[in-house]
Amino acid sequence: MTTSDLSHEIELSPAFHDLDPMEIVWHGHYVKYLELARCALLQRFEYDYPQMRESGYAWPIVDMRLKYVRPVAFGQRLKVRASVTEWENRLRIDYLIRDACSGDKLNRAYTIQVAVDMRSREMCFVCPPVLWQRLGVAP
Amino acid sequence: MTTSDLSHEIELSPAFHDLDPMEIVWHGHYVKYLELARCALLQRFEYDYPQMRESGYAWPIVDMRLKYVRPVAFGQRLKVRASVTEWENRLRIDYLIRDACSGDKLNRAYTIQVAVDMRSREMCFVCPPVLWQRLGVAP
Amino acid sequence: MTTSDLSHEIELSPAFHDLDPMEIVWHGHYVKYLELARCALLQRFEYDYPQMRESGYAWPIVDMRLKYVRPVAFGQRLKVRASVTEWENRLRIDYLIRDACSGDKLNRAYTIQVAVDMRSREMCFVCPPVLWQRLGVAP
Amino acid sequence: MTTSDLSHEIELSPAFHDLDPMEIVWHGHYVKYLELARCALLQRFEYDYPQMRESGYAWPIVDMRLKYVRPVAFGQRLKVRASVTEWENRLRIDYLIRDACSGDKLNRAYTIQVAVDMRSREMCFVCPPVLWQRLGVAP
Repeated sequence: MTTSDLSHEIELSPAFHDLDPMEIVWHGHYVKYLELARCALLQRFEYDYPQMRESGYAWPIVDMRLKYVRPVAFGQRLKVRASVTEWENRLRIDYLIRDACSGDKLNRAYTIQVAVDMRSREMCFVCPPVLWQRLGVAP
Repeated sequence: MTTSDLSHEIELSPAFHDLDPMEIVWHGHYVKYLELARCALLQRFEYDYPQMRESGYAWPIVDMRLKYVRPVAFGQRLKVRASVTEWENRLRIDYLIRDACSGDKLNRAYTIQVAVDMRSREMCFVCPPVLWQRLGVAP
Repeated sequence: MTTSDLSHEIELSPAFHDLDPMEIVWHGHYVKYLELARCALLQRFEYDYPQMRESGYAWPIVDMRLKYVRPVAFGQRLKVRASVTEWENRLRIDYLIRDACSGDKLNRAYTIQVAVDMRSREMCFVCPPVLWQRLGVAP
Repeated sequence: MTTSDLSHEIELSPAFHDLDPMEIVWHGHYVKYLELARCALLQRFEYDYPQMRESGYAWPIVDMRLKYVRPVAFGQRLKVRASVTEWENRLRIDYLIRDACSGDKLNRAYTIQVAVDMRSREMCFVCPPVLWQRLGVAP
């Protein structure tokens, strides 16, 4: 399995309610775009939020970073690519947001999640095997 | 007990992230201001979200109306008053948002909630007595 | 022109970040769904937010009402229909949100907007002709 | 001037609409808390959003990182401290979110903003002197 298999790309356009007085997308709303791409990616592996819950693990985000390269305006069409890049001890997903027409890079980001056993409420220092099975990877 | 006893007023200022490209608060964000006032009111009667849950009832909003009289700008200081106006078959709360300085009326709204028994998942056609006890009213 | 010509329907699924602790969509987020359908409708008539601005008018929402019939859960597929139902003195849009599979009615809503002349900042008591031209209606 | 002079702390409680199905604050809403603290800090130096605009500069966020140490629940009282830690070529603000009662560290974050000349739309590689004047610092 190559890394490209662990990627997924969605397209979206910012909503009017995502714009700030500068008429660009307010920086905090990008976190929603990351989540939409992450959920679409994890859904493909049948390990989105409802399946996580069924598997007995919560996967809170413990680290998130966004680098804003260019602003995003109303009506602009975006491609948001999410790629799993770590899965052994934590689930790291990298994101790239580009303009769907020009291909211009607009934002780079990552999120890091760790598994929390929902019964003991304890954090797992190694990802539970269910993640590897779903992603089809070896630890 | 008079109706004024069933009222509560909070003060707040819109956040930068509540502004839209017209540099006024986006109309959907008022719903958050109503909720802040409603929660503060219900908290005073020890019947806010956690206590609702403990009492075995969820109280979903089934009807909501907002009338926007004047726009709200960044830095403006607001008073949001919430008043319980019905409690027999449903919980109706009326809201008045005013400019804290001038007293100008900015928005009028109401929300209507009904009790849902969390075990049976059935809607109650009469409010459960716990509401009346907490509010100190007779049905 | 029939009323059905002035309608538009979009499909969407609630995002994880739209859910509340009851695991249903928080009532305030529906306002975003209405806006997505309204913008898609107005875009079809080339009179969405950027064209409104170019035409010299802002169209603030002055009245909004939502009736919640059934809750919406994560993963549910929704159809949101927006229909222009008044255009003479004010722009009224009616909304119907249904489950895309079962067709069950989930929410009914309307929004009312009035034109504000962006130069004089005055409200128009009759809609400006640009609206009628774009919608292809007679006042 | 010491660094502590360039800090400001606010207190807040998460709203019900900030909670996710895990009954904790959804990770994206922390960005709003950072902004509330940043605006309060910059307001103290009379260089909040409206004054930035008047000075001819926009200050978009170009980099943001949040490290989530512990989850935040409804009703929890938070202290959010924002501190200016760089001002020469870019404006860096560091944040610490703690539980107001226990003092427990909940989140650490930073944001980096750069000045953009609103007339030329060009990014400034050195912060404009107006920032230093307002903050009372030497470059």
